[in-house]
Amino acid sequence: MSICKLDLRNGRVDLSHGAGGRAMGQLIEGIFHKAFDNDWLRAGNDQSAFAVPAGRLVMTTDGYVVSPLFFPGGNIGSLAVHGTINDIAMAGAWPLYLSAGFIIEEGFPLADLDRIAETMGAASREAGVPIITGDTKVVERGKADGVFICTSGVGIVPAGLDLRSDAARPGDAVIVSGSIGDHGVAVMSKRENLEFDTNIVSDSAALHGLVAAMIEVAGSSIRLMRDPTRGGLAAILNEIASASKIGLRLDEAAIPIKPEVAAACEFLGLDPLNVANEGKLVVLVAPEVADALLAVMRTHPLGAEAALIGHAEVSDHCFVQMATSFGGGRIIDWLSGEQLPRIC
Amino acid sequence: MSICKLDLRNGRVDLSHGAGGRAMGQLIEGIFHKAFDNDWLRAGNDQSAFAVPAGRLVMTTDGYVVSPLFFPGGNIGSLAVHGTINDIAMAGAWPLYLSAGFIIEEGFPLADLDRIAETMGAASREAGVPIITGDTKVVERGKADGVFICTSGVGIVPAGLDLRSDAARPGDAVIVSGSIGDHGVAVMSKRENLEFDTNIVSDSAALHGLVAAMIEVAGSSIRLMRDPTRGGLAAILNEIASASKIGLRLDEAAIPIKPEVAAACEFLGLDPLNVANEGKLVVLVAPEVADALLAVMRTHPLGAEAALIGHAEVSDHCFVQMATSFGGGRIIDWLSGEQLPRIC
Repeated sequence: MSICKLDLRNGRVDLSHGAGGRAMGQLIEGIFHKAFDNDWLRAGNDQSAFAVPAGRLVMTTDGYVVSPLFFPGGNIGSLAVHGTINDIAMAGAWPLYLSAGFIIEEGFPLADLDRIAETMGAASREAGVPIITGDTKVVERGKADGVFICTSGVGIVPAGLDLRSDAARPGDAVIVSGSIGDHGVAVMSKRENLEFDTNIVSDSAALHGLVAAMIEVAGSSIRLMRDPTRGGLAAILNEIASASKIGLRLDEAAIPIKPEVAAACEFLGLDPLNVANEGKLVVLVAPEVADALLAVMRTHPLGAEAALIGHAEVSDHCFVQMATSFGGGRIIDWLSGEQLPRIC
Repeated sequence: MSICKLDLRNGRVDLSHGAGGRAMGQLIEGIFHKAFDNDWLRAGNDQSAFAVPAGRLVMTTDGYVVSPLFFPGGNIGSLAVHGTINDIAMAGAWPLYLSAGFIIEEGFPLADLDRIAETMGAASREAGVPIITGDTKVVERGKADGVFICTSGVGIVPAGLDLRSDAARPGDAVIVSGSIGDHGVAVMSKRENLEFDTNIVSDSAALHGLVAAMIEVAGSSIRLMRDPTRGGLAAILNEIASASKIGLRLDEAAIPIKPEVAAACEFLGLDPLNVANEGKLVVLVAPEVADALLAVMRTHPLGAEAALIGHAEVSDHCFVQMATSFGGGRIIDWLSGEQLPRIC
């Protein structure tokens, strides 16, 4: 099929690009096959096959609706790749393959779609996790918002590892892999009607390499891992506390946060504990292994600022409590409102 | 987490349902966990794990943007389950697990979301393929169109089977599993500004049972299978011809089509060959096995009207040609326009 009709500089997506005919073939070949570049896609099937050894796999899926689509440190494409890889990695699994579905608004510039796909392809190659199958839909102008991306992924769990969301126990150490709030602040800084100057870039990154190093040193002493995306550290810690029926006690002074992020959160009226991250993880680990785990995390570029921020304790009400820097204490609750829509 | 706040009768989705906090947890538990009902989802992770034997798996993904969301014979939920299962089945694979991502417009009625999720859950249970992981995003009013669903799936390929999109050869028999155009006509009959009276219902159905029976009788004499969804029979036959570098010669009189579908297509100015199907497949098979394959297909409820509609031939230009009922002939080309947007 010829791709000569696709004007990547000035063209726009129209409804024919989603209609299953020749134009859709041109879009898929001229943008997605070019950007993702692998033999699975070139085979041109509605599915792709791969060999697996006997064992345990994990599967995950995510929709991405971030607004704006482009932000400091990435765009919706790299975010979709990193986010799905991280959901696989949080099971202690090694990501094998990704799929990508695009829902595109009529009129969306082909140049922007091309840029997003190229960023996705680069993120996928850098992570070593190919995008092997996909789908493209186009909806009428005003029925979507530029482009939404749905990525799914499969990964393989190391033999003998079985992380469960309810596995935390009183006494466990709570470690975060680096500074919090960077992604949310980077995206907010480019929001219409809100733009402000900051040097903060999204922390969007694929964490499977860091996780593999952590498993090597701490193995099944790791109780569970989670990535604090939407809802931030506060939501994820409350989920952990509820699932494992424990309390968590944090030390505010130990939680890494960049001064610019803290300043931006103050300016925006946000608690950094509620702000999304896309390249950070929280791990609960048996206390006797915490130091060794921290040490190995700090040797990895994505864990250089890892910090022990608290510990698990017995709590009938599964409270997450924090000793503040001023010597007081407060309960960290779920975010109940809609402070930060479309952050991922 | 309590679900007391979710008013399934009069409530509407708001941005807090996508924010990662307590409201999102209530939505997921009160609608999706209830409808899909399995232990994988109840574990509450961002991914789900399952055991596999050594072998070949397939992975597929699809976005669903059908408009209207509810149509005779199904809704976007059943369509998403069937479509993804069918993409797996077209590789000759047995579907194992599904994922589901929802992108919901603010203000969407919870009652409609509940109905869609219940239909999805029922379709998944009927097919025996559980939805084991998911994701929910909410965008502002006017930034989507009710709800979009992205489903992905994994399946296992029978040992020794390797269907390839370029495997058809001159002489192969072309069989379709039943009447064409039902889905597209059913959806169009409910379109705003277009509503017309018809008894036609969508053929939306999961084809993996039919496919398993076909593989049992025809095995690797099956060259390839495809489901003629968007773009209809015309698009899929052209894709097959191009990939395998063959021509296809069809007999119009042999192509099963319901009189009401033919009438509706005439009324709408559509060629039924371009109209989408969601419960049909096209199979190319070695000619000596065609009769046995047809016989077994016709014993299955979803293949009762299966028909031999043509054969593959040598063709330098990969033409799909059809002998018409009036004794003439014509070339069946790709659909190049945007006749039927948002049909799936």
